[in-house]
Amino acid sequence: MTNNDLGHASGNVGIVGPVSGTEMPRFAGSSTFTRLPRHDEVSDYSIAVLGAPFDGGTSFRPGARFGPSAVRQASRNLRPAYHPDLDVAPYQRLQVVDAGDVPCNPFSIDEALEQIDRYATDLLSQRHRLITIGGDHTVALPLLRSVARVHGPVALVHFDAHLDTWDTYFGAPRTHGTIFRRAFEEGLLIEDHSIHVGTRGPLYSGQDLVEDASFGFQVIRAGELDRLGIEGVVHRIRTRVGDAPIYLSVDIDVLDPAFAPGTGTPEMGGLSSRELLHILRGLPGDSLVASDVVEVSPAYDHAEVTSLAAATIVYDVIALMAGAGPNANP
Amino acid sequence: MTNNDLGHASGNVGIVGPVSGTEMPRFAGSSTFTRLPRHDEVSDYSIAVLGAPFDGGTSFRPGARFGPSAVRQASRNLRPAYHPDLDVAPYQRLQVVDAGDVPCNPFSIDEALEQIDRYATDLLSQRHRLITIGGDHTVALPLLRSVARVHGPVALVHFDAHLDTWDTYFGAPRTHGTIFRRAFEEGLLIEDHSIHVGTRGPLYSGQDLVEDASFGFQVIRAGELDRLGIEGVVHRIRTRVGDAPIYLSVDIDVLDPAFAPGTGTPEMGGLSSRELLHILRGLPGDSLVASDVVEVSPAYDHAEVTSLAAATIVYDVIALMAGAGPNANP
Amino acid sequence: MTNNDLGHASGNVGIVGPVSGTEMPRFAGSSTFTRLPRHDEVSDYSIAVLGAPFDGGTSFRPGARFGPSAVRQASRNLRPAYHPDLDVAPYQRLQVVDAGDVPCNPFSIDEALEQIDRYATDLLSQRHRLITIGGDHTVALPLLRSVARVHGPVALVHFDAHLDTWDTYFGAPRTHGTIFRRAFEEGLLIEDHSIHVGTRGPLYSGQDLVEDASFGFQVIRAGELDRLGIEGVVHRIRTRVGDAPIYLSVDIDVLDPAFAPGTGTPEMGGLSSRELLHILRGLPGDSLVASDVVEVSPAYDHAEVTSLAAATIVYDVIALMAGAGPNANP
Amino acid sequence: MTNNDLGHASGNVGIVGPVSGTEMPRFAGSSTFTRLPRHDEVSDYSIAVLGAPFDGGTSFRPGARFGPSAVRQASRNLRPAYHPDLDVAPYQRLQVVDAGDVPCNPFSIDEALEQIDRYATDLLSQRHRLITIGGDHTVALPLLRSVARVHGPVALVHFDAHLDTWDTYFGAPRTHGTIFRRAFEEGLLIEDHSIHVGTRGPLYSGQDLVEDASFGFQVIRAGELDRLGIEGVVHRIRTRVGDAPIYLSVDIDVLDPAFAPGTGTPEMGGLSSRELLHILRGLPGDSLVASDVVEVSPAYDHAEVTSLAAATIVYDVIALMAGAGPNANP
Amino acid sequence: MTNNDLGHASGNVGIVGPVSGTEMPRFAGSSTFTRLPRHDEVSDYSIAVLGAPFDGGTSFRPGARFGPSAVRQASRNLRPAYHPDLDVAPYQRLQVVDAGDVPCNPFSIDEALEQIDRYATDLLSQRHRLITIGGDHTVALPLLRSVARVHGPVALVHFDAHLDTWDTYFGAPRTHGTIFRRAFEEGLLIEDHSIHVGTRGPLYSGQDLVEDASFGFQVIRAGELDRLGIEGVVHRIRTRVGDAPIYLSVDIDVLDPAFAPGTGTPEMGGLSSRELLHILRGLPGDSLVASDVVEVSPAYDHAEVTSLAAATIVYDVIALMAGAGPNANP
Amino acid sequence: MTNNDLGHASGNVGIVGPVSGTEMPRFAGSSTFTRLPRHDEVSDYSIAVLGAPFDGGTSFRPGARFGPSAVRQASRNLRPAYHPDLDVAPYQRLQVVDAGDVPCNPFSIDEALEQIDRYATDLLSQRHRLITIGGDHTVALPLLRSVARVHGPVALVHFDAHLDTWDTYFGAPRTHGTIFRRAFEEGLLIEDHSIHVGTRGPLYSGQDLVEDASFGFQVIRAGELDRLGIEGVVHRIRTRVGDAPIYLSVDIDVLDPAFAPGTGTPEMGGLSSRELLHILRGLPGDSLVASDVVEVSPAYDHAEVTSLAAATIVYDVIALMAGAGPNANP
Repeated sequence: MTNNDLGHASGNVGIVGPVSGTEMPRFAGSSTFTRLPRHDEVSDYSIAVLGAPFDGGTSFRPGARFGPSAVRQASRNLRPAYHPDLDVAPYQRLQVVDAGDVPCNPFSIDEALEQIDRYATDLLSQRHRLITIGGDHTVALPLLRSVARVHGPVALVHFDAHLDTWDTYFGAPRTHGTIFRRAFEEGLLIEDHSIHVGTRGPLYSGQDLVEDASFGFQVIRAGELDRLGIEGVVHRIRTRVGDAPIYLSVDIDVLDPAFAPGTGTPEMGGLSSRELLHILRGLPGDSLVASDVVEVSPAYDHAEVTSLAAATIVYDVIALMAGAGPNANP
Repeated sequence: MTNNDLGHASGNVGIVGPVSGTEMPRFAGSSTFTRLPRHDEVSDYSIAVLGAPFDGGTSFRPGARFGPSAVRQASRNLRPAYHPDLDVAPYQRLQVVDAGDVPCNPFSIDEALEQIDRYATDLLSQRHRLITIGGDHTVALPLLRSVARVHGPVALVHFDAHLDTWDTYFGAPRTHGTIFRRAFEEGLLIEDHSIHVGTRGPLYSGQDLVEDASFGFQVIRAGELDRLGIEGVVHRIRTRVGDAPIYLSVDIDVLDPAFAPGTGTPEMGGLSSRELLHILRGLPGDSLVASDVVEVSPAYDHAEVTSLAAATIVYDVIALMAGAGPNANP
Repeated sequence: MTNNDLGHASGNVGIVGPVSGTEMPRFAGSSTFTRLPRHDEVSDYSIAVLGAPFDGGTSFRPGARFGPSAVRQASRNLRPAYHPDLDVAPYQRLQVVDAGDVPCNPFSIDEALEQIDRYATDLLSQRHRLITIGGDHTVALPLLRSVARVHGPVALVHFDAHLDTWDTYFGAPRTHGTIFRRAFEEGLLIEDHSIHVGTRGPLYSGQDLVEDASFGFQVIRAGELDRLGIEGVVHRIRTRVGDAPIYLSVDIDVLDPAFAPGTGTPEMGGLSSRELLHILRGLPGDSLVASDVVEVSPAYDHAEVTSLAAATIVYDVIALMAGAGPNANP
Repeated sequence: MTNNDLGHASGNVGIVGPVSGTEMPRFAGSSTFTRLPRHDEVSDYSIAVLGAPFDGGTSFRPGARFGPSAVRQASRNLRPAYHPDLDVAPYQRLQVVDAGDVPCNPFSIDEALEQIDRYATDLLSQRHRLITIGGDHTVALPLLRSVARVHGPVALVHFDAHLDTWDTYFGAPRTHGTIFRRAFEEGLLIEDHSIHVGTRGPLYSGQDLVEDASFGFQVIRAGELDRLGIEGVVHRIRTRVGDAPIYLSVDIDVLDPAFAPGTGTPEMGGLSSRELLHILRGLPGDSLVASDVVEVSPAYDHAEVTSLAAATIVYDVIALMAGAGPNANP
Repeated sequence: MTNNDLGHASGNVGIVGPVSGTEMPRFAGSSTFTRLPRHDEVSDYSIAVLGAPFDGGTSFRPGARFGPSAVRQASRNLRPAYHPDLDVAPYQRLQVVDAGDVPCNPFSIDEALEQIDRYATDLLSQRHRLITIGGDHTVALPLLRSVARVHGPVALVHFDAHLDTWDTYFGAPRTHGTIFRRAFEEGLLIEDHSIHVGTRGPLYSGQDLVEDASFGFQVIRAGELDRLGIEGVVHRIRTRVGDAPIYLSVDIDVLDPAFAPGTGTPEMGGLSSRELLHILRGLPGDSLVASDVVEVSPAYDHAEVTSLAAATIVYDVIALMAGAGPNANP
Repeated sequence: MTNNDLGHASGNVGIVGPVSGTEMPRFAGSSTFTRLPRHDEVSDYSIAVLGAPFDGGTSFRPGARFGPSAVRQASRNLRPAYHPDLDVAPYQRLQVVDAGDVPCNPFSIDEALEQIDRYATDLLSQRHRLITIGGDHTVALPLLRSVARVHGPVALVHFDAHLDTWDTYFGAPRTHGTIFRRAFEEGLLIEDHSIHVGTRGPLYSGQDLVEDASFGFQVIRAGELDRLGIEGVVHRIRTRVGDAPIYLSVDIDVLDPAFAPGTGTPEMGGLSSRELLHILRGLPGDSLVASDVVEVSPAYDHAEVTSLAAATIVYDVIALMAGAGPNANP
């Protein structure tokens, strides 16, 4: 599949939106993300939502392979026509599609990462943005590789309870806790423009923080939110990333387990849903070139609380990307 | 049943309180709300708690028909003698009763609404207040009709993730998302004295907000809490309602799904339990003529978290009503 | 019904099967039933699987509106290429498709039944068979109406804890407990060829059984299985239906709650999963003109036990239908 | 409270039945067992249903204190007018009432047992029968004491995974595993007329069986069901008890954990729900003078599967008692 | 670690049993299997229980890595002193120990299998038997390799819903669905002495059965139990294995999902717990040289139903091994 | 208390830390708290973690007897080497051990309290600190008695939704709601140095607060947090306790039910996890002589949210204690 030769959808003419909740009840019908058209149903798109159902890089509770289907199912609950906080009707403004799932090999980390890279590379371009639903955090590495091929190194804005910059785990270099060290080593990140937000919890070693800083990361720990406030956090992030293109990576465990029990390595003391949403809404949407929302492990969820949070975040990122001005659509 | 000829319970003489937790363990005995006397066990009352087990107006996850029994069951956990935040012993001050459930027809919205109206009308008067446990939010319409017959139009203080002022849904004019537009059209609300608190999430259309405002509603969105603080929200509400009689409607989904997973249309980013309680405690209790607490859907609850929240809110509203001065009891 | 004269897809040439579990992991990819092609992806079909997400006729626990999506999700667990008990590869033999969901109006029983009738009528013919995933049992009435238009009256083979031949409930003539009385009254059933299997539990009245018999039903109560054995039950059913075209209706509550907790009106003392499957496998597949599997209410399910049972039954019915001889495909 | 002076309800004249499911939906209204009248609402009764919410004698998973309220809640699901297997309309035949809960002291085994004894003694007589919902199995001891005072020693028919004839546990003589040894020692049981049904699982010692036999118990182990069949088991029980008055004690853990997960000491390999129901239905109803259904621990239940099983058993025991001939009612 | 030089524990002198449930409540204290001594607390042993917490070979729902800790936790519920069905006090007869967990690399199937092989080889000998708690079924391959080194090829008695003799999955030769083909190819199994019991459900291809038979397996499908009965199944197995040393492999999904929801690839229509236990009890205990109980995935379990079933099976296998005559202990 | 004079383990020489997560995956291996060495595996220790699995003093939902095993299991999720907020590597600094469980008699409050006292007294000294995992709050009384024997009266810092200074409950003087009144009466607390934090919810009587104050307690109600902020709360606590030795008692229900559903008497409107952690981190670690974390009732938990919170708190208290200067280890 190549998208290179796909013509521009001019303005919002011919944009195909999601199935309407007044024609087909939201609990029924299409099971794509917010019931958007599938990738093969439209001729071009501005934003693709992709599933990366892989959890072979998980160190504790597995199950994120069921993340994409659970997040899509929970997205039925959204009424996505208009985003009042961002004052945008993203699906009228841009053609957004559901690009389905990458057929990740569950038994081989390396092959799965190659498959994700290949799919992302087919979908991404200067004018095609990508939001990927994990899967565990390992999937962010091939996504960053693919992004860097299009945009060069990027600023990473990383919401997570953990740094994910360890070196290896049981000898494995590419797991859900090591991918951003690999990304740094591979030159996928702009030096000194990346930031972790929401980290907390005990570490394997105090050296973890030293090394992390040496890779050019800043950190806003979860406990700093009470002092900084949402606006302070937004300011710190925006200052850090400047005008660089941003890869936004949201590990759902940045939320406190009360808000996101369905995840693999929960940590007490995280962000509330409202805090996370309002920080995200402060990000510069037009700089967002790609994003992921990862580590939803549905077997540990209850009443779709976690999946719904992830679905809402995906939708908010779409709305952010769509809010970038009159030429937002390709 | 008529209550017109019921004599006043003078002061707290002869008030029948709940079964004592030191005589019958709270996990046992009566299953009325906080083990209050039933309506037919006392000669008069100031506040009646009524169940409206109807969920035929639900657009997404049904199940609120089991709300009244679940909230009553969870109310066992309360030790209701004294409310320290409001400094009142409501069940010593006023005769409060459990009036049972309305036998709502589960197959006919219109018949169910009539049944609720009839029961509410029997229970309500200038000196008999009513708190209704839903059921889905559709039940608020007949309650408002009944209230308006006694008090005339009222100010609506409405805690909810959603506006509930849509027009129709699948052609149905009376569903859990349309009732406050109907109430406005029917003249049940005082113009420009009503307010939504806690709304958030995507909308079917930006026009929703315009129309909502045209019906005379103000809105405090969930995200505004971080800026306004609890006191600011209370101030905005009190300013809005003035001295008008208040109908207080609490959709449990005003809480974040972490605090209230057991509901039909959860929305990420809501209020915390503590925020909601302390805002409620700032309301003018003597203006509260009736209230509902709706949309508890127990099949989606866990460990009674949602039902307990609803039960606590009902109890707090009772305490608010009871805190209105020396003549609070009829 | 015979399929011998059913034309155009010659043999298994051109049949499109489900997505292979060795190309796309079963936990990923398409969310159609067992990842079959959608109705609009092939030119013709022999069997269509349809969702009827309606639960407005439910008398106790609602939620079956989420049945179709849950059963499809659970069907991912099946590896459907070959059915060893029936010695058939149904998806190689017949073109089977997922026809999506009927957009049932959740607020109007009558409108929803009309919608289901319309969709079923579009899908059914002498050579197009239909299996519908409910939804509550109310959906069987429009399905029988549609079937009778094509095939005339049929024999009903009805697996259920309940008779579903009550008259009205709260004045409503069409609910999940009354549909087979309506079907009898409307002449949709061949006289004296229908049978209930697995009924049990207390009744509103002993008269229920008398009336039921007067409508031409036989009953095999759940408790009779221990005496009759699976073969005895199969023999009774086959004797009853003779050569008549069969509408097979499976209310998942025919299973004991241990095997199917996720349903609206569970009854203790039901069939085991193994009993039900082996009774079904004894039915004459070439007489099956249509079927439903209803009353899966996912909010009460655990670990997809109920949804998986329903998905397996749907697959077994497909395999039964596909086992009708060398020219089974249209 | 004394019942001694309560006049006979003659025949079914004046019998007050449960709230009708066609007037008040079963999910609403009264929360007594199957919505029967309360003890204080009628002048006399033949059978009383009593809650004994005590779990202080539990050796493993506690929580049976919530058993009575959970079983009553689950009993809403029953439509109790007519029992087709026993061909009896129990609530038309006999006045059955819900006598509420014993206010058991949760901190003192001895005081709780005294309280249960006192309540049972008030309710029981030659013509007043009693069915008690536990609570853990410890509650059977005071019940047997009370029964023996009225009827003299009785035959015990005991369904359970365990013998419950251990001596002491942590020095405590009266726990849920020792009560039937105490009953034997106190002379509450007729020698050589009692029987355990469904025991299985490992024991503390092989001596347990020897001692148990020395107390005059026979045993039908769970594994014997496959050989004996339901009829064989019924025959063994009826032979054992002869014409003696029977105390029927049903520990819900006699069911396999698949059928009754919500219990304190589950044992793999138990009876199915259907087996248990049909064995119970073979018992001589007119000999049943009292019964208990114990060890439902709702916190471990799912979708009310266990509570519904217990409620169905209580109802079946009522129907058995009611099926004893034209003079069944006092 | 080597066990070669460990002296015999003569008879039951000096045998260290589990922590007594009358000294330390079963819900407390040691978390070894049934609170047995750890491997390092005794000088020798006859049977070791080992955890193999690996789920990297799982094709559908992962999570069996938490199996060993969950099964040990559930084993608290057992009172293991005496097994009445087998008339043996296994822990008095033989020294049984908990050998802890293999530190399986979660990111490398091959390394994990080597680690399991190494641990098993350290623990196994002609007079040291091993029961392993999985983990997914992949762990059986290194266990069979280790067993074959001590005993030569063995007869495999394999309880499972699936054949587990597929070739590869996503190119991976060693997954939970392919290990017994690998075992056949590696010559670990005696030709024509192995048998699958309980298989059911659809297959990838009818060829699966042909190939499986060509590897020397017989099959007793789940549906055959109704005809053969427990004794018939036992007879078929004993005839098949003859006097050969037996490796017993129990995939918990041989049970119906009602009895074992907590597993990775559940299949409707399986064995009941009672059937499985009584078939196991018919096996020749003195031929059992090693065993596994695998595929418990606790995140999908409820109320420890599945874990308790697995724990009971492990205990029953121990009792079977211990019932082999006066010289059972090394 | 200072550790300066606490002898024999010199510095961190010879300290045995937890099993490393890079050698044995965290989901496997030892089930001690954070996989620390057992008490009997090292020659001395500075801090012991003890389980007190007793819930016989519970007034509402029981089950805290399973707290110790659940909290230890959840502690697997922690990577405990380095605590970045407190900048300490506690397990390198001090020898911390898991001292197992007290074998509490589940049937006798008095005997259980004696057993806990005895175990605590064995473990505690001027240089041995103790952190106890409950169990219900009753266990704090024997712990305070034991502490007072070593240190004399202490300041109590008490996080809880409730005061726990009631007099008796059902005549029982020692229950989970009365222990701090007993402690006051027994002279175990320094006058006017103790404080409750996080109390909320209705009371049995307004007198409760008056009496509580008369015992020398201050109160910071949950609702005050919004005004005081974390720093304000810390300041109030530190001012209150001064330089006194502190017994820190954390009832997990101080958290809102969203953060800690798995507890016996949840109260709406509590602290968030982040608030609690950051308040705890402000306490003077070197004054902490003992602590408890109680009231985790796992049967009501979901996805280990509550157990993980408790485990994190235990770890944080260890880190606080370990942060007391260069010679912290005995």
